Amino acid sequence: MKFTIPHINLHLYRRGRSAKVGMVPGTPMYLGEEKNEPVTLDVLTYNEQEVTRQSHSSVEDALKSVGPGSVSWINVDGIHDADKISQIGEFFHLHPLTREDIMNSNHRPKAELFDNYIHFTLKMLTYNESGFCIDSEQVSFILTQHAVISFQENPRDVFQAIRERITQSKGRIRSRKADYLAYSLIDIIVDYYFIVIDNLEKTILHLEEDLLSKKEEQRTLERILKIKKDLLFLRNSIIPVREAVTALQKADSTLLDPSTRQFLRDVHDHAIHAGESIETYREMLNSLMEIHLTGLSNKLNNVMKTLTVISTIFIPLTFIAGLYGMNVRDIPYANGENSFAWVSGGMGVIAVIMLIIMLRKKWL
Amino acid sequence: MKFTIPHINLHLYRRGRSAKVGMVPGTPMYLGEEKNEPVTLDVLTYNEQEVTRQSHSSVEDALKSVGPGSVSWINVDGIHDADKISQIGEFFHLHPLTREDIMNSNHRPKAELFDNYIHFTLKMLTYNESGFCIDSEQVSFILTQHAVISFQENPRDVFQAIRERITQSKGRIRSRKADYLAYSLIDIIVDYYFIVIDNLEKTILHLEEDLLSKKEEQRTLERILKIKKDLLFLRNSIIPVREAVTALQKADSTLLDPSTRQFLRDVHDHAIHAGESIETYREMLNSLMEIHLTGLSNKLNNVMKTLTVISTIFIPLTFIAGLYGMNVRDIPYANGENSFAWVSGGMGVIAVIMLIIMLRKKWL
Amino acid sequence: MKFTIPHINLHLYRRGRSAKVGMVPGTPMYLGEEKNEPVTLDVLTYNEQEVTRQSHSSVEDALKSVGPGSVSWINVDGIHDADKISQIGEFFHLHPLTREDIMNSNHRPKAELFDNYIHFTLKMLTYNESGFCIDSEQVSFILTQHAVISFQENPRDVFQAIRERITQSKGRIRSRKADYLAYSLIDIIVDYYFIVIDNLEKTILHLEEDLLSKKEEQRTLERILKIKKDLLFLRNSIIPVREAVTALQKADSTLLDPSTRQFLRDVHDHAIHAGESIETYREMLNSLMEIHLTGLSNKLNNVMKTLTVISTIFIPLTFIAGLYGMNVRDIPYANGENSFAWVSGGMGVIAVIMLIIMLRKKWL
Amino acid sequence: MKFTIPHINLHLYRRGRSAKVGMVPGTPMYLGEEKNEPVTLDVLTYNEQEVTRQSHSSVEDALKSVGPGSVSWINVDGIHDADKISQIGEFFHLHPLTREDIMNSNHRPKAELFDNYIHFTLKMLTYNESGFCIDSEQVSFILTQHAVISFQENPRDVFQAIRERITQSKGRIRSRKADYLAYSLIDIIVDYYFIVIDNLEKTILHLEEDLLSKKEEQRTLERILKIKKDLLFLRNSIIPVREAVTALQKADSTLLDPSTRQFLRDVHDHAIHAGESIETYREMLNSLMEIHLTGLSNKLNNVMKTLTVISTIFIPLTFIAGLYGMNVRDIPYANGENSFAWVSGGMGVIAVIMLIIMLRKKWL
Amino acid sequence: MKFTIPHINLHLYRRGRSAKVGMVPGTPMYLGEEKNEPVTLDVLTYNEQEVTRQSHSSVEDALKSVGPGSVSWINVDGIHDADKISQIGEFFHLHPLTREDIMNSNHRPKAELFDNYIHFTLKMLTYNESGFCIDSEQVSFILTQHAVISFQENPRDVFQAIRERITQSKGRIRSRKADYLAYSLIDIIVDYYFIVIDNLEKTILHLEEDLLSKKEEQRTLERILKIKKDLLFLRNSIIPVREAVTALQKADSTLLDPSTRQFLRDVHDHAIHAGESIETYREMLNSLMEIHLTGLSNKLNNVMKTLTVISTIFIPLTFIAGLYGMNVRDIPYANGENSFAWVSGGMGVIAVIMLIIMLRKKWL
Repeated sequence: MKFTIPHINLHLYRRGRSAKVGMVPGTPMYLGEEKNEPVTLDVLTYNEQEVTRQSHSSVEDALKSVGPGSVSWINVDGIHDADKISQIGEFFHLHPLTREDIMNSNHRPKAELFDNYIHFTLKMLTYNESGFCIDSEQVSFILTQHAVISFQENPRDVFQAIRERITQSKGRIRSRKADYLAYSLIDIIVDYYFIVIDNLEKTILHLEEDLLSKKEEQRTLERILKIKKDLLFLRNSIIPVREAVTALQKADSTLLDPSTRQFLRDVHDHAIHAGESIETYREMLNSLMEIHLTGLSNKLNNVMKTLTVISTIFIPLTFIAGLYGMNVRDIPYANGENSFAWVSGGMGVIAVIMLIIMLRKKWL
Repeated sequence: MKFTIPHINLHLYRRGRSAKVGMVPGTPMYLGEEKNEPVTLDVLTYNEQEVTRQSHSSVEDALKSVGPGSVSWINVDGIHDADKISQIGEFFHLHPLTREDIMNSNHRPKAELFDNYIHFTLKMLTYNESGFCIDSEQVSFILTQHAVISFQENPRDVFQAIRERITQSKGRIRSRKADYLAYSLIDIIVDYYFIVIDNLEKTILHLEEDLLSKKEEQRTLERILKIKKDLLFLRNSIIPVREAVTALQKADSTLLDPSTRQFLRDVHDHAIHAGESIETYREMLNSLMEIHLTGLSNKLNNVMKTLTVISTIFIPLTFIAGLYGMNVRDIPYANGENSFAWVSGGMGVIAVIMLIIMLRKKWL
Repeated sequence: MKFTIPHINLHLYRRGRSAKVGMVPGTPMYLGEEKNEPVTLDVLTYNEQEVTRQSHSSVEDALKSVGPGSVSWINVDGIHDADKISQIGEFFHLHPLTREDIMNSNHRPKAELFDNYIHFTLKMLTYNESGFCIDSEQVSFILTQHAVISFQENPRDVFQAIRERITQSKGRIRSRKADYLAYSLIDIIVDYYFIVIDNLEKTILHLEEDLLSKKEEQRTLERILKIKKDLLFLRNSIIPVREAVTALQKADSTLLDPSTRQFLRDVHDHAIHAGESIETYREMLNSLMEIHLTGLSNKLNNVMKTLTVISTIFIPLTFIAGLYGMNVRDIPYANGENSFAWVSGGMGVIAVIMLIIMLRKKWL
Repeated sequence: MKFTIPHINLHLYRRGRSAKVGMVPGTPMYLGEEKNEPVTLDVLTYNEQEVTRQSHSSVEDALKSVGPGSVSWINVDGIHDADKISQIGEFFHLHPLTREDIMNSNHRPKAELFDNYIHFTLKMLTYNESGFCIDSEQVSFILTQHAVISFQENPRDVFQAIRERITQSKGRIRSRKADYLAYSLIDIIVDYYFIVIDNLEKTILHLEEDLLSKKEEQRTLERILKIKKDLLFLRNSIIPVREAVTALQKADSTLLDPSTRQFLRDVHDHAIHAGESIETYREMLNSLMEIHLTGLSNKLNNVMKTLTVISTIFIPLTFIAGLYGMNVRDIPYANGENSFAWVSGGMGVIAVIMLIIMLRKKWL
Repeated sequence: MKFTIPHINLHLYRRGRSAKVGMVPGTPMYLGEEKNEPVTLDVLTYNEQEVTRQSHSSVEDALKSVGPGSVSWINVDGIHDADKISQIGEFFHLHPLTREDIMNSNHRPKAELFDNYIHFTLKMLTYNESGFCIDSEQVSFILTQHAVISFQENPRDVFQAIRERITQSKGRIRSRKADYLAYSLIDIIVDYYFIVIDNLEKTILHLEEDLLSKKEEQRTLERILKIKKDLLFLRNSIIPVREAVTALQKADSTLLDPSTRQFLRDVHDHAIHAGESIETYREMLNSLMEIHLTGLSNKLNNVMKTLTVISTIFIPLTFIAGLYGMNVRDIPYANGENSFAWVSGGMGVIAVIMLIIMLRKKWL
């Protein structure tokens, strides 16, 4: 899903809501672009001793590994296959609304607690260097006793580092439960927000430099509008994560270990930090808009000043020339010797006086 | 009830309030446009086994079906008949203020809990494709143990999908109590908000395209104002739904099943989502307003620049022509051979110098 | 007390505060315009069986009717007589600060609970059709076990409908206690707010029509300012009523019956509704201000465009005429036959070319 | 301490903070302008029977009167003498930070509860009629069981009315404890806020009249800025008083009698009222700023209109005159009889046509 | 770390976040500029009787002094050495996330409570007189039972006064526990905020004077933008300190003595005070921006007025001169005696009349 110039892609944030109107609540129905690719389930099962990684296309095969004694991370690549989602839903006894939400690629970030599982949804944002745009994807997590199921539409994701930590047994992840895995996945998604924000900042810095160096170009306004929309999009994607993580942290659920809650507090801090950055950039952008507008006013002033200076000097002189051009008798100084020199000299004196007045008024 | 350009129809939101001033509180009195059409009661009674649908014009007939063992949905088309509302009110022991509120087609969305029933009021919004406007209608629900009574003025509604689900036994609605029916009705109304918002978004996108492609047209300002009013209207209609659903969700009432509360949480999420979309569009609109204003400034700048360029070039030249037009003796270069060529050549040199200066200052 | 154009009558809201500086707290002192008219006490005593209405000028006479078995409504017309207020205050054991507040015609709306009575203060607002202004008056209520005392300065009030309901035994008022009477009085005052708001809305609609039809008139800015001040005044008068009614509703006092609290909830809804309307109109007004300013910019643009078009066409032509007016030898095409036709024809060609350029640039 | 035009005296609000950096916390150090005047202690001791008033320069003498059976009000004129503050601090067992705060003339208004005393700080604001400015002074109160100590730098204060009430036994002050005295002192300071606000309002009214009557003067902008700064200063001084009084009212301290809390509620209402007035004036000022800016735009429009009208009429006419001034053969109508009349008549017709067009376009 | 003109250094606030993406949470990794300087540990151990100060480069040596009976203040100059941080972390059993946060020089101010220690992070801000910029540095404190460990990157700090108080036994610090030391360090950092704010205020005052004295210079806009960014930076640095101190004050931890909490309340007041000052300056800056923009408008008005006056006077006169320059027969007054005097006199009369009209319209 791309977020490009110059259309308001805020739409994407809730695309397709209207397509579901009238459906039975809890009907799993994919709301993204139509897809036919087969859905694959990547299963990573690990405990402190061993780790296995397998790719399945059948749900039953994938779910076999789930059980006590190890943590299973089932990453579902593709949320357009309602049957597979239903099978998973039945296995883990997911609420119909949860099944519906998983397939809805445009949901608001949120955490929902159920008796037997926790459902967490947020946006995975990555900066697309080639397209100068933000790629956004909906990711849902289901945290159960022994498994984390992550749902995403596109196979490209930000979880590679986590996979390496598990397979290479880096850090404390192998010795922890499923809740720590869920935390790790949310944490890395939130970390990626800062890459997007950093890139947005570069764009703002670039815009500011252009504005201050007065490299006036036609597209300034469009650039400001584009960044404004990006920031609105980021705000809508990131701000709700704050509450969602707080809800998770304070969840009255045995699925979450107190030590994991400590780590969630860190994610919460990062989400606040990201939110504050966005607000700061919004204020900066308003300042840049003001600078742009003032620049336009200044330019108009300068143009007007030039016009006025030239008009003010030449209009009276032209009048005098006109006077001497009249077909009238007895114009003074017109027929004496060197009359042209006298008249043009007089004009020169008038011009110099006016120039001095203007210099004093700082118009030049 | 129509919401058209260019009058502030916000008025509609509370039309007629002043007509009731001085009345005994709790006096049921219809506040909409005068109507004489007979009120019909559409009764749908169902349980897991069977479903019957009947249309009555008498209240007594309609209420006969209400009782344990099945859920009755009484849809009252027309709220202008005070007698019928009173009869229903007496049957279900409705508070005088509830009766008054039902007939008031301009109430703020709210949920009110009573010992024996719950009263829920919100706006049903639909997008009128033909009139490019939002149709708004007040809908009230009374949830009792075995029945849901829905009140609306116009027979056109958004409940067709629900009726089909009941008659064709789709989903889980037939196996649930009255509270699930009430949830379903509120849910579909909130779903329709997204259709209205989607259409508004299209209008904003269209406006943005026009603004960025600089297709300046006279009506830009009116279009912005029209959308602004639509958004104010939507905000006033949708934001209070949030609190109302929360009140319902947390209601200390045996009329609501815990599982239904779970579904209400979903409606609550949707209402928040709709509210956020509206706020986002309000910000977009402010940006578009700024772009419009900057566009005006830019245009003025361009016009002024042209004027200045032409004036700056020709004013000095015209002065020189004036000089040579003076009826004065001994003008230099005036009487030599090819004097015209010399003079006009000199003018040409001056013009070229000025053009070069302007090109350097980026005025051209 | 009048709220007229164009002075800031917000002052009125707290007129005279400074006059009391240094007084002993609780000193009853009238802060409105000086009055000498005698204070009259209108006493309406009723129970389910009978109703008596009497007008007294002596406080003792008026208070005789107060007692168990009936509800007494003592309406005090005139709050400038400190002696009478003191007598009433002593009879009902009112706190010195309450006595002071009653005489202060500029208090902020509020509810105060005491052991033996409740003190409620708000603004009675009426729209003065003849003066196109809002009349505002401070009204205080004292709710005791068997009586409601209402204090107002001017005999003109909005309570006529209540008096009729009591004397003609309309509605449920005759069968209720003093708390229902107090509710009824507050309810009717809040209802009247909507008449004021409706009239303000008409003014805004009128202004909008004038702005969109571009009937530019000098007073637009003053009209906007006047409405803005009216809205500020309304906001200051109405918003605190919300909290005051909430305080009453949740009051831990035996003076208020649970069923009356239900009715107060309705008043609370109305007060919120009125507040939301005011906020909506404030936003509308900001939009109208923007439209007014943009209209000014547009007008300037049009004027500048005309100037530029005319200048751009005639400045080069005048230059050419000046060239041919030079007293210089051998001007080309000047002395041939039909030279005027050739020259003016050349000018015409230049003018047409420039017109075409301008048409392309959409300046015409 | 003066608040004058046009410097930002907001500085004064916290002048000298930086001078204390690095000091031991709780070091009493005077932060105002340097003073050498001797500190005097004005002691007023009273009970229901008798009252004595004495002025001391020694702290021991002043503190002798403090004891059960009477209330002592020790008013310390001058807070620059660290020794005297220390002596008082030791007598009443004041916390080091309290001693420091008393000498800090730039503290934020606040209430602090200690086991044995209450510390209350706020700004005493008076309107300086001669200097058209607000005089601000920091006042601290220490409320103990049997005494109130008030600290201020300058002998000029607003407490005269309280002194009279005590010495002349007006009101209930003589029969009350120290807490009522503290309330009375806070109450009168808050009352004086309204005098300052009233004077500010007069300034705003005056500005508004000048703006609407279009008496354009150079200093409008400075006046608006000056009032804005005054309002910012008032807001910073008055808004925190609200919380401070609330903290006092709800203080879990035996030093405050329940009946005094009732009176504090009244002070709280006044502080809210003052705060609302300031917010209202801030909004008014924004409107006035908008009017000022629109006035500038309007003026520019009018000037441009005049220029355009004159240019539009004369530029074509001058071109025609130029045409007839060409030294070219066979100019039509140039050599016939009355040719001047014909030509100038033709010019007149063109001028009249253009005037009619302009009148239609409402440019005149 | 410097905060200079004109780039958005807000970036610095969270520099390098993106560098850590994908790391194991709790990995201590320095995020500032690369450093190779050796890390030194400055240890100050004191109790009421004695004080020793030593500088170590080995962590073990530094930690030897920590123990009951005295307070150790270990100031770590340099946070880029992960090994040393790890050694300290292990000695005091610090949570992995705490170790990570200490090395992250761009963290949001916060207080975190752990069972055995408290972690407090804030920005140390100093005003760099030579560079006209704000130097910002991240400082972390670990408060344990018998020691305070402070972490900073650069050896230059604001703690000199504290060191002197300890070594010279000034104030009560020597007789208090570690919590009082931690308070003292936080207090002095917050005190230094006022020096930064004072310097910023001077800059704003200077800007205001320049604006009001109309010393128009090109860089006004840049100066406003620079101050705006400084204020945004200060706000982001200072506002969160408020919550962090509140969290500390209310911390349910035995590490904090009640008497120290009293002192923390004072720091809290100062943080609020600093925050309010920043908000006030932000409002002032908006006013200055408005003044700047209005100044531009005014200037344009004046330039336009001059142009209009000169054009309005000379355009008709030039036209008359053109009339008399026509090669047309029988121009009136053209061939009489003194015809030039008559014609130019007539022009003079017209000019005077126009000047009078303009004077009346106050254009001159």
